[in-house]
Amino acid sequence: MSKSIQLDALQLGLCYYPEQWSDSLWEDDFRRMKEMNLSHIRIGEFAWSIFEPQEGVYDFDLFDRVLDLAQQYGLSVIMGTPTATPPAWLTQKYPEVLNVSIEGVTYQHGMRRHYNYSSPKYQELCATITRQMANHFKDHPAIIGWQIDNELNCEVSEFYAEADHISFRQWVQKRYHTLEALNQAWGTVFWSQTYTDWEQVYLPRPTVSHSPNPHHVLDEKRFISDNTIAFARIQADILREVAPHQWITTNGLFGHLDSHALTEELLDFFSYDSYPQFSTIFGSDEPKPLLDRKWSQNLSVVRNISNNFCVMEQQAGPGGWVNRMNMPAPRPGQLRLWTYQSVLHGADLVMYFRWRTATFGTEIYWHGLNDYHNQPNRRIAEASQVGQEFVAIGNKIASTTYQADIAIVKDYDNDWDGEYDIWHGPLTAKSINAWFKQLQYQHIPTDIIYLRKQTLAELQQYKVLIYPHAAIMSEQTATLLTQYVQAGGTLILGARTGYKELSGHCRMAPMPGPVASLCGISVADFTSITGNAPVPGLQWQHTNHHMEQVAQLFNDILQLNEDDVEVLATYTSSYYEDAPALTQRPYGQGKVLYYGAAFHEDVVDELLRILEISSPVAEWLEVPEHVEIGIRQNEQNRYIFLLNYSDQEASIHMKEQRTDVLTDTVIEGSATIPAYGVMILE
Amino acid sequence: MSKSIQLDALQLGLCYYPEQWSDSLWEDDFRRMKEMNLSHIRIGEFAWSIFEPQEGVYDFDLFDRVLDLAQQYGLSVIMGTPTATPPAWLTQKYPEVLNVSIEGVTYQHGMRRHYNYSSPKYQELCATITRQMANHFKDHPAIIGWQIDNELNCEVSEFYAEADHISFRQWVQKRYHTLEALNQAWGTVFWSQTYTDWEQVYLPRPTVSHSPNPHHVLDEKRFISDNTIAFARIQADILREVAPHQWITTNGLFGHLDSHALTEELLDFFSYDSYPQFSTIFGSDEPKPLLDRKWSQNLSVVRNISNNFCVMEQQAGPGGWVNRMNMPAPRPGQLRLWTYQSVLHGADLVMYFRWRTATFGTEIYWHGLNDYHNQPNRRIAEASQVGQEFVAIGNKIASTTYQADIAIVKDYDNDWDGEYDIWHGPLTAKSINAWFKQLQYQHIPTDIIYLRKQTLAELQQYKVLIYPHAAIMSEQTATLLTQYVQAGGTLILGARTGYKELSGHCRMAPMPGPVASLCGISVADFTSITGNAPVPGLQWQHTNHHMEQVAQLFNDILQLNEDDVEVLATYTSSYYEDAPALTQRPYGQGKVLYYGAAFHEDVVDELLRILEISSPVAEWLEVPEHVEIGIRQNEQNRYIFLLNYSDQEASIHMKEQRTDVLTDTVIEGSATIPAYGVMILE
Amino acid sequence: MSKSIQLDALQLGLCYYPEQWSDSLWEDDFRRMKEMNLSHIRIGEFAWSIFEPQEGVYDFDLFDRVLDLAQQYGLSVIMGTPTATPPAWLTQKYPEVLNVSIEGVTYQHGMRRHYNYSSPKYQELCATITRQMANHFKDHPAIIGWQIDNELNCEVSEFYAEADHISFRQWVQKRYHTLEALNQAWGTVFWSQTYTDWEQVYLPRPTVSHSPNPHHVLDEKRFISDNTIAFARIQADILREVAPHQWITTNGLFGHLDSHALTEELLDFFSYDSYPQFSTIFGSDEPKPLLDRKWSQNLSVVRNISNNFCVMEQQAGPGGWVNRMNMPAPRPGQLRLWTYQSVLHGADLVMYFRWRTATFGTEIYWHGLNDYHNQPNRRIAEASQVGQEFVAIGNKIASTTYQADIAIVKDYDNDWDGEYDIWHGPLTAKSINAWFKQLQYQHIPTDIIYLRKQTLAELQQYKVLIYPHAAIMSEQTATLLTQYVQAGGTLILGARTGYKELSGHCRMAPMPGPVASLCGISVADFTSITGNAPVPGLQWQHTNHHMEQVAQLFNDILQLNEDDVEVLATYTSSYYEDAPALTQRPYGQGKVLYYGAAFHEDVVDELLRILEISSPVAEWLEVPEHVEIGIRQNEQNRYIFLLNYSDQEASIHMKEQRTDVLTDTVIEGSATIPAYGVMILE
Repeated sequence: MSKSIQLDALQLGLCYYPEQWSDSLWEDDFRRMKEMNLSHIRIGEFAWSIFEPQEGVYDFDLFDRVLDLAQQYGLSVIMGTPTATPPAWLTQKYPEVLNVSIEGVTYQHGMRRHYNYSSPKYQELCATITRQMANHFKDHPAIIGWQIDNELNCEVSEFYAEADHISFRQWVQKRYHTLEALNQAWGTVFWSQTYTDWEQVYLPRPTVSHSPNPHHVLDEKRFISDNTIAFARIQADILREVAPHQWITTNGLFGHLDSHALTEELLDFFSYDSYPQFSTIFGSDEPKPLLDRKWSQNLSVVRNISNNFCVMEQQAGPGGWVNRMNMPAPRPGQLRLWTYQSVLHGADLVMYFRWRTATFGTEIYWHGLNDYHNQPNRRIAEASQVGQEFVAIGNKIASTTYQADIAIVKDYDNDWDGEYDIWHGPLTAKSINAWFKQLQYQHIPTDIIYLRKQTLAELQQYKVLIYPHAAIMSEQTATLLTQYVQAGGTLILGARTGYKELSGHCRMAPMPGPVASLCGISVADFTSITGNAPVPGLQWQHTNHHMEQVAQLFNDILQLNEDDVEVLATYTSSYYEDAPALTQRPYGQGKVLYYGAAFHEDVVDELLRILEISSPVAEWLEVPEHVEIGIRQNEQNRYIFLLNYSDQEASIHMKEQRTDVLTDTVIEGSATIPAYGVMILE
Repeated sequence: MSKSIQLDALQLGLCYYPEQWSDSLWEDDFRRMKEMNLSHIRIGEFAWSIFEPQEGVYDFDLFDRVLDLAQQYGLSVIMGTPTATPPAWLTQKYPEVLNVSIEGVTYQHGMRRHYNYSSPKYQELCATITRQMANHFKDHPAIIGWQIDNELNCEVSEFYAEADHISFRQWVQKRYHTLEALNQAWGTVFWSQTYTDWEQVYLPRPTVSHSPNPHHVLDEKRFISDNTIAFARIQADILREVAPHQWITTNGLFGHLDSHALTEELLDFFSYDSYPQFSTIFGSDEPKPLLDRKWSQNLSVVRNISNNFCVMEQQAGPGGWVNRMNMPAPRPGQLRLWTYQSVLHGADLVMYFRWRTATFGTEIYWHGLNDYHNQPNRRIAEASQVGQEFVAIGNKIASTTYQADIAIVKDYDNDWDGEYDIWHGPLTAKSINAWFKQLQYQHIPTDIIYLRKQTLAELQQYKVLIYPHAAIMSEQTATLLTQYVQAGGTLILGARTGYKELSGHCRMAPMPGPVASLCGISVADFTSITGNAPVPGLQWQHTNHHMEQVAQLFNDILQLNEDDVEVLATYTSSYYEDAPALTQRPYGQGKVLYYGAAFHEDVVDELLRILEISSPVAEWLEVPEHVEIGIRQNEQNRYIFLLNYSDQEASIHMKEQRTDVLTDTVIEGSATIPAYGVMILE
Repeated sequence: MSKSIQLDALQLGLCYYPEQWSDSLWEDDFRRMKEMNLSHIRIGEFAWSIFEPQEGVYDFDLFDRVLDLAQQYGLSVIMGTPTATPPAWLTQKYPEVLNVSIEGVTYQHGMRRHYNYSSPKYQELCATITRQMANHFKDHPAIIGWQIDNELNCEVSEFYAEADHISFRQWVQKRYHTLEALNQAWGTVFWSQTYTDWEQVYLPRPTVSHSPNPHHVLDEKRFISDNTIAFARIQADILREVAPHQWITTNGLFGHLDSHALTEELLDFFSYDSYPQFSTIFGSDEPKPLLDRKWSQNLSVVRNISNNFCVMEQQAGPGGWVNRMNMPAPRPGQLRLWTYQSVLHGADLVMYFRWRTATFGTEIYWHGLNDYHNQPNRRIAEASQVGQEFVAIGNKIASTTYQADIAIVKDYDNDWDGEYDIWHGPLTAKSINAWFKQLQYQHIPTDIIYLRKQTLAELQQYKVLIYPHAAIMSEQTATLLTQYVQAGGTLILGARTGYKELSGHCRMAPMPGPVASLCGISVADFTSITGNAPVPGLQWQHTNHHMEQVAQLFNDILQLNEDDVEVLATYTSSYYEDAPALTQRPYGQGKVLYYGAAFHEDVVDELLRILEISSPVAEWLEVPEHVEIGIRQNEQNRYIFLLNYSDQEASIHMKEQRTDVLTDTVIEGSATIPAYGVMILE
């Protein structure tokens, strides 16, 4: 997608809440920001009560003063629309704007994001405040762009207010036109669920066993995404109309939202809020977890939306709410490391959240660069270093883009269907984690792409596509993938591929459905590996070696239908011992692999060996696996980022001479990167 | 009970949903069924929307065509009433028919079983559709019988709609007549709960600490059972009146329902839905769990309702809903094995669920014999083999009955009271599991009987009765048990026996209350074995050997009150070390044992040794413990079933010559049963 | 506080429920009580249905007869007001009196404590029944005092009925006067939560992510406490007016209630319900848990409210409701031991709960002294022994008080704030447990005091104060603590001290805020030890020894700001290895210690060594750590209690000759205390 932020140099900024501080602090704050080479601030996104203290009464004085001061200090300002936090007067007067749980509990004033997107009244009130702000601020020279709302679908991405049910009903009517079509799509003849009147149609409601109709549930998520975009569109349209010279973005990446469509339809570019320290509060019992490098995976998705983007909120310290999400402090160097992690993956503007830690409210433990005491600390020091570095090298890096020859493929339909469907969602989670991890550890830059309306040419920029468990697959997608292989690509598929249509109905055909003829195999038998079912190993045919218990979660037992299908591995136990587990077939100029299970890390490694996929820097650069390697380049230049996520220094060995642009020193032979250190080679 | 299905030969069938498939498939389906010797189909039980697409508008065309085709192919049809799935138009117009959670959340359209039994409107609507169907189908020659509703009390067996509260109030009035009697029965003087007006009486409602009055809770379950039967009776009465030549059944076995009374009062015989693969999805950390043999236990209860019965739904493949209950595939042979498991325990008609896997809806992973693709597979092959075998031997086996000399005794009052009461329910669960398991492993056929109104003669068919922890025990039951022992029976009782009256009040008498004089002991002291209380071992007096930590969950410390009481074992630790734990007393022609704890597997084994209880085939047949042995016989013939639940073949050794009726071969000396194999010796 | 029970001798009693038994049992019950030297009974507290069977109709006959009989047998009676169990007629007619969950579920009749304190109607009904009872019973000679309600805030200490919201709104208005002040106190500018109308103010309501405003949540708890006291005050005022010669108490110690204020404002003394066997049903994976000695900790809090108090309910047997709280039986000796545990800590009147186990209702497993069967048992025997002992020594012990030189300091603001705030509450729980445990094991008697309005002189009775993690600390408190140290005291503080104001806002100053200058340090950096953050050890500077992984939960990295600050220990790992972790500073006549983490048991032990804190009997008495040692004394006498909580006998060694007052024998040299035994040395 072409929706990228356009900057001549890397820029650093921060989120600022003038309304939370004495105005006597503002000028000192801005002065220090400039000293630190922080050039951008985001403001306003939670200040509805300030902008409109009573219904229809507007007061922009506080922010006018802030903007004038920002202008005076040369700060560029991103203004947030405040619709993520409706004021108390609003929800008191119009309770129909509130969101409601599926059990019927209304979320009330007292936190944030307690509204629904469907209420005509809320849409009207949001339109009004947006227009008022746009009119007032459109000509202020400090303002460069707008953020719509804040973190759409964060905290909650399900909505069951009365207005949502009505909105869903309209969406369903628009999608299906007739009740016959709706009944067909949702398979309502099953369990006598047939609808005979549109008024019978609701979003999923409480059911016995918490098990609503799965096709209904899939459409619910499609609706939520469309409805979220429709909500954002109201503001985007007003801003485009009133303030056409200021850009528009919003900060994602949250559930039940097609962020690609959102960006394509409404935004100038996508923004992301990057909090890698979350990795410390979710336990992982897997060996060698990615931890904060998992955010490289998230950023790879963001990059698929906007090659160059903004990180609107970059972790600036320990995180946590008063009652949840207790994060330890980032270690010295980590804030800088994470900043370059964002940059590597395409961020040209990085904004720390936040300038100074709040002294009241729910987020007193979501630390900003400054502590409560507002005195120098190591986080300020780190951000200052980054500020200086950006000044030095920012113009080189900006607008270069991340390079990868391999892509992991996802799509929203399977994401959403797999949330509810435990026969493919957990497989995808396991396999994508394993693939991304092993590619990281082997220093192979990888894209994550969402299948939407790509052309063959767009896919062909990748030598290898890994599309692990696309249960839902259209004939159109199957055709495109076939063409991709035909034209020379390598396609890797996994268990449960292709058995569902877009509606989520199962095809009356052998699996893997529309790619069966491409793969030259079909699934003769299968079993979920769950409960007391043993996890088989694999016997690799080319080397005759054996892996124990790697064929996890699901086993397709494969039947070869074409002579040119090669069995790469067979199962080593259970009643289907020796049956094909993994096949490869040459097809046209390319080849296709089908694996009957979820991908274990060891299986990924073996496939990388077999397919001879290796790091683009393997010939001249040797680095430990705890260092991430990625490349940003344009037609002129190529920058190799080395990011050390370990608390130990990393020894690297180079066969070529390179320049570290951060230190502007030439490196050859052996070198070390400090713990949590960064190196950018030119 | 005499309520048995009457068949001349074993029959095989399946559940079929013509409304879910193109009618172009029907004839091929029926043709293949006949080829496979599948003679029966069940249809209609979820098709209310088809039968009555709008209120009062009936359309039987689809099913008429199916029935005519079934008749043409010689299939016998069981017609289900569709009342488990009220249509959308119904719940839209009459929301009072919906079920409600105790917290007040209404279960809405979108799944199944979302109705309550108490709504007069729902009762009326169910009566109407039943009468319409009965009138329409009563003379169709293909129809042999009816299934009422589907799986009554499955998924949810609690009901809190307004109509349920009203219905409960009426039930309570009928049971107690006066508020004084009610207050007495529920002990309402405790915590000032006294009712002074019938309108104050509800089903349990939300309380602080989720701890409603226990006598109220016990009566709630009695009410639910009675109310469920009353709901079914409406349909049964109509079917008896309109279609007197067709039999009536329904498919159980679910919570809060006296299936014995249901069958006795309304049905021709009871039916069961047998899904042994559920055993794979519930973790068990006990050593040597029964797994799918647990269904032998379930079937033993069914057999106590109807000696010969129908398995209306027999597992036909992997199971699972889209979001729950993920089961692996049955291993090759298991479907056939499970079919014979049902047959051994008394099923003369076995219907696979289902013919072909649904391609849409909640149950797309509840696999039928056919896959989505409708092509031959190993499940079809297995069912075909069973079909052929039934043709060959079905007339011999049909109407023979299971034989056992030993019975585990249960009753509904203790089942229901023990659900809420953690001082005896968990003991019963532990002990019955241990007894059933060890009896299985020692190849001792065992009945499970519910105490209802048995005569002494009925009990006397058993040499041994095990009634582990009957907290609730009437004087009448105590008298019957005493007569049973007097007349020569062996009775085995466990901790917490007999301290409660039918109301759930505790007796003001030493435990074990009404059987204390029979046992010749009383409980001098006791302790729950929970928290940090150590689990004592047992010192066996006859052998002087010691078992570690077997006296689990509860310890009654026994006091001997009669000279003829023998101490079989004492406790080995805690402050009651050396106190009697297990006693035996000769009484009349028989004997009674009292054990002060929950029964551990090792204790069961020791008791079997002491009591010299052994397998009826022990003298001539030696088989591994993973093979179940059971006997079906009538006055002429006796068939010994050997069911191998292991994935390894089983070596057996015989001292007598026998014929395997399945292969019609004579066996003598050593032989093997394949993994998941079946042998029936004559 | 001076609010102590005034008794000349230790007294024993019990809770009695005449309404639950045939009146034919009463006289025998009373006769046996007297035989056992049980002198007091509590009655009436759940008998509203008896006292007022219909609204406005009163019937005191049953209790008149009981009182006359009690008088005849010389029993002193405590009468409970029955307001913890509103009758069915009451909640049927006035449903607004019921309590409601935060999600809006109303708690209904059927358990107890299902009412709210705010309903004007309930307040009126409670006032009326209290006045009726007071008028009727005020002159009965058997009655010595009253218990208000029962266990205020037990089971549930949150209230969301409409009346509660209204009452909270009034409380907030009274506290803050203006919306500006409210908005300031709750920091509502954060996330646009500003209130512009009092009608917008509610108790916390359901929010997304269950994360209401933390200042709001803190004020909620303050309100609940005030509101509970206001509810109790209605009854207290009536009883003072009508029955001025009878004393008033109530039985605590429950959540969200300032029991100190309650007692000071309303009661003659505080009472406690002591159930040490609860310790057996909550798993603890810490090494050497206190188990039933945890109740010594609870009793230490009670003692801080009333030096001499009543244990209104003393565990009398196994405990448990039908569906919850399954407790094993107390071991032989434990009931007596626990009775003396209460006495040691200041109870002069101990009432067993209850005389005879209920045979119906929710508490049939909450065993009284008598079993259901009402025949002699070992619990009756134990209570009889205690009864005899009280007769023998009760006049010596009564009104002596517990002696301690060291105190653990708590306060309600931090208790309540720490419930929600996971950045300090869990630290406090860990540290207080560790301190109390190690002090117990080292036989150092310890008080637990709540900071309220103490004078310097009151604090000065302690040589050492441990105030582990007082996140909220006023300047006033800081001044008092500084004066305490100045005057010679030793003060021990822990991580997160002093960063919050009373509102829960964070100070814009370096931590530890108002005590930073006292401690001579500030917190240069910090990290929560959570997720994958490693737990550092400590390097002790004075001995140079090392402790592994003891610096748990949080690490303040300290900066020394004064020359006289001594580093006692440094961290041994992580990026702040070698940084100061624990400091000590002489100040005035005393000293202050600051420790940057939660207190681990080993750290406590080391501090006790360093500070030379030892047992007051260390010089002449040697006992194992499983024996609790405490001292009750007055100006004349001093009684050293030795309580053996082990199931093994305890060997003790004495260098001085003492008399065991329980056996009236002289002891010198070595002696043993039996398992669960008690010794009181004079």
